[in-house]
Amino acid sequence: MATLKDVAAECGLTVTTVSRVLNNRGYISKNTREKVEAAMKKLNYRPNEVARSLSKKSTKTIGVIVPHIRHPYFAEMISNLENAASKQGYKIILCNSRGKSEMEKKYLEMCSSNRVAGVIIFSGGVALEDFIGSNIPIVTVERFIESGTAGVECDNSEGGCLAAKHLIEKGCKNILHISGVNENAMPADERASSFMQVCDEAGVVHREVATDIQVYENQDYTDFLYETLKKNSDIDGVFASSDLIAAQLIQVLTKLGRRVPEDVKIVGFDDVFIASITTPSITTIHQPIKEMAETAVRILIDASEGKTVAKKTVLPVKIVERETT
Amino acid sequence: MATLKDVAAECGLTVTTVSRVLNNRGYISKNTREKVEAAMKKLNYRPNEVARSLSKKSTKTIGVIVPHIRHPYFAEMISNLENAASKQGYKIILCNSRGKSEMEKKYLEMCSSNRVAGVIIFSGGVALEDFIGSNIPIVTVERFIESGTAGVECDNSEGGCLAAKHLIEKGCKNILHISGVNENAMPADERASSFMQVCDEAGVVHREVATDIQVYENQDYTDFLYETLKKNSDIDGVFASSDLIAAQLIQVLTKLGRRVPEDVKIVGFDDVFIASITTPSITTIHQPIKEMAETAVRILIDASEGKTVAKKTVLPVKIVERETT
Repeated sequence: MATLKDVAAECGLTVTTVSRVLNNRGYISKNTREKVEAAMKKLNYRPNEVARSLSKKSTKTIGVIVPHIRHPYFAEMISNLENAASKQGYKIILCNSRGKSEMEKKYLEMCSSNRVAGVIIFSGGVALEDFIGSNIPIVTVERFIESGTAGVECDNSEGGCLAAKHLIEKGCKNILHISGVNENAMPADERASSFMQVCDEAGVVHREVATDIQVYENQDYTDFLYETLKKNSDIDGVFASSDLIAAQLIQVLTKLGRRVPEDVKIVGFDDVFIASITTPSITTIHQPIKEMAETAVRILIDASEGKTVAKKTVLPVKIVERETT
Repeated sequence: MATLKDVAAECGLTVTTVSRVLNNRGYISKNTREKVEAAMKKLNYRPNEVARSLSKKSTKTIGVIVPHIRHPYFAEMISNLENAASKQGYKIILCNSRGKSEMEKKYLEMCSSNRVAGVIIFSGGVALEDFIGSNIPIVTVERFIESGTAGVECDNSEGGCLAAKHLIEKGCKNILHISGVNENAMPADERASSFMQVCDEAGVVHREVATDIQVYENQDYTDFLYETLKKNSDIDGVFASSDLIAAQLIQVLTKLGRRVPEDVKIVGFDDVFIASITTPSITTIHQPIKEMAETAVRILIDASEGKTVAKKTVLPVKIVERETT
């Protein structure tokens, strides 16, 4: 890799002059600028951002720690985070913790050692006490963190409420809610509480089952769903806590000879692209993934610049009606 | 952020001694080590990897440039790349080019300025001539690049062959191949040629249609598929060049009153997780995504260390039979 020295030697100027051209500092004649630029091009010179980061004490890098990259919700979130960061001139280092506490810790240390501007960390089950006082802003998304800088969530409570009301309006009398992993308290838990409240108020029978962590990690809910439907064969409506669960529920119901939406109606959660490519397509609660990503990036950059930021931001959800209801 | 100097002051030792403890260099007494470690913990000190990278001229970072993060194929590939890189002590900077030439160029420059060990770049339509001689190893995946360091592909030709044979064995007489974007020559083009050859040899009617770039970028093939099926209403088998297309094809066929697999059989490509969550689930050509990711990372690291690497690596595919055939 060509250095500043090589460029200076190539065009017969001093390193100081070349550096001035590069940083656009002070007066530089048109002739000098052209000479330097020609030499840079010839030698394929690229400014060393590592050196620049060290002297400026800022890397324009955001660490992003997710429990799963290939889960469609996280894939869409990462895509939006990268987009939002890139627009602000930031790059992202992507870390996949696989929901493991020791991996999250290792990645947080790595991010810290690499002097990232901050870390955006997602729903996962890990205590972050070790990072109190690490001076790196930590923005959480859909995750409680007592000591984090700021949290971004969607309106989970409203989501559960909308799902219950919609299923009741469509005539369901006996509704099952399949909730996510419930080992750790998470903002998503509010979906279940508001769902139950609406059902109770309407006098509709409801029950709740939670998936376990193994199933969540494999993304394969088939056995779990067969078991659940065997035990709850009388249901006529399901509120699933992700579109991924809803998609697999359509498969299992079809195999059991129950028609969707005629016999059982389904509402999912997230509104990731799989909700629109299943047959039938999935009615779901739309999470504002793009806006959540943009908010997380904005808050992180503001916090890293020492600005005061909102401790908690809740973004609205809405229902998107498709074919499963 | 605490510095080495702060740690030295805290434990009453010299910066040199603290640095020796940190780098495990020379003799250090147990007592000294414990003192230094206690001070580091107290001050929440993290070694500065930026400074270390600058002095070692190596960042242990890999740039990954994809055209789409949220496309399930790329989401699974990124997940496997992150995993393979992490096992080797490397981190990844993720870049989403949206298939745009100017974005790819910008990201390649950014990676180069940030002194990454190398770049892994995916199928996309951009000339990389500017980067000949940039001294960064560039590993391409499913993409031709004359001047890149190395290319990793799956056996696309065998994939097309397996798909055609399978549909013919299942009794199809009139097969449509929906190929990907064909603006630029890509290794994936070989799927179509071998597919046609097998059909010709078996005396089976076949025709080919290509999706366009807009449809690929939106991931919404619905209108395109309606149009295609209207023009080709007599087909009884489809070989789709991605599982994403296959999933949407099930939707459109169902709406047109044609049953899958009774009236029309479908074979997809990729074997990403959506192939197993649709109703019916999709018979598909399995790309060895994990192995391709591991190979790309290994070749990149070897090349960055100056080792001689294979110019082209082709990994095997296989057919996974599910319900659409």
